[in-house]
Amino acid sequence: MSDRLEAQFAFLNEADRLKSVLRATTLVDGSRPENSGEHSWHLALYALVLADQAGPGVSIDRVIRMLLIHDLVEIDVGDVPIHSQNGTAHASDETQAAEAKAADRIFGLLPADLASSLRALWEEFEVSQTPDALFAKSLDRVQPVMANLMSDGGTWVTYNVTHDQLESRVGVKIAKGAPGLWDWVRERTLNWFQR
Amino acid sequence: MSDRLEAQFAFLNEADRLKSVLRATTLVDGSRPENSGEHSWHLALYALVLADQAGPGVSIDRVIRMLLIHDLVEIDVGDVPIHSQNGTAHASDETQAAEAKAADRIFGLLPADLASSLRALWEEFEVSQTPDALFAKSLDRVQPVMANLMSDGGTWVTYNVTHDQLESRVGVKIAKGAPGLWDWVRERTLNWFQR
Repeated sequence: MSDRLEAQFAFLNEADRLKSVLRATTLVDGSRPENSGEHSWHLALYALVLADQAGPGVSIDRVIRMLLIHDLVEIDVGDVPIHSQNGTAHASDETQAAEAKAADRIFGLLPADLASSLRALWEEFEVSQTPDALFAKSLDRVQPVMANLMSDGGTWVTYNVTHDQLESRVGVKIAKGAPGLWDWVRERTLNWFQR
Repeated sequence: MSDRLEAQFAFLNEADRLKSVLRATTLVDGSRPENSGEHSWHLALYALVLADQAGPGVSIDRVIRMLLIHDLVEIDVGDVPIHSQNGTAHASDETQAAEAKAADRIFGLLPADLASSLRALWEEFEVSQTPDALFAKSLDRVQPVMANLMSDGGTWVTYNVTHDQLESRVGVKIAKGAPGLWDWVRERTLNWFQR
């Protein structure tokens, strides 16, 4: 028991470092960059509040668990802003390998049973094939869009993004897991880009 | 549908402000005060990882939902540091009334069904009588203890706290919802105070 708690707290103390990983996106009020810890909280709250946007077969509680851990690898690898990736919107092989190594190290701090279940949950999010992972990804993509809408364009201005690029890099992924949500948000992004 | 999403996003955008509410506790590395948004994320992760410390009848998924929303009232009221309250470790009537008013306003941004279910979940956390709420409270109390242990005493030094005070203000509450956890942590706090 004692060794088990030692391992659980080694992980929880290490996880604290996610609060110091900065993202390209700012807070809604534009005052400072968002960090990946508070981003993960906000996303879990998105899942709780937007549950009625999920398709059939989605377990919101699994989605919440997934979102709580989805960015932990950034402790080692940092955040890669979507609009900085030359429009591919895909992580490079190099980034993917670094993230897998980070997942091994960070989840590996936990007792074996937890390490393997949480690493599998992270992998499911990354691969994005299951209904839970597709919905989680949609939320991960829509939250920065809302922050940009609220803060005069945010990273769209930073990276000189067009609405076509937003649609192909971000909109398509939101629509995949939450089509009704993208319809609603797209009306607002179109308005913003045509301002 | 459209009005519903308008209300859901009014709430989610307002919730963003919790990332700007600062706590007395610092990050584990002592670099800066923790904010209540990232604190809420860390606590939800505590629930996920320390689920085996919960007593019978506890639903970890409900605990996680509760922890995601437990501090939202601080957007209006701010954080009241435990060791700043003249040792009572209870919120004043005035604070409680202000928090209830904040809950009405903030959860009231949501569509009626969500407003009422999430406000009830927040109330359950505040009243702390159910197994879920007692476990959630234990985690809310133990996380700052770990941060203090990791950062040379943190708020224990700020507020000149003794181990007896820590025990009566914090330890008793941790033990109520997670006795095994307090046994383990208490060994470490005793060591720190006797250093």
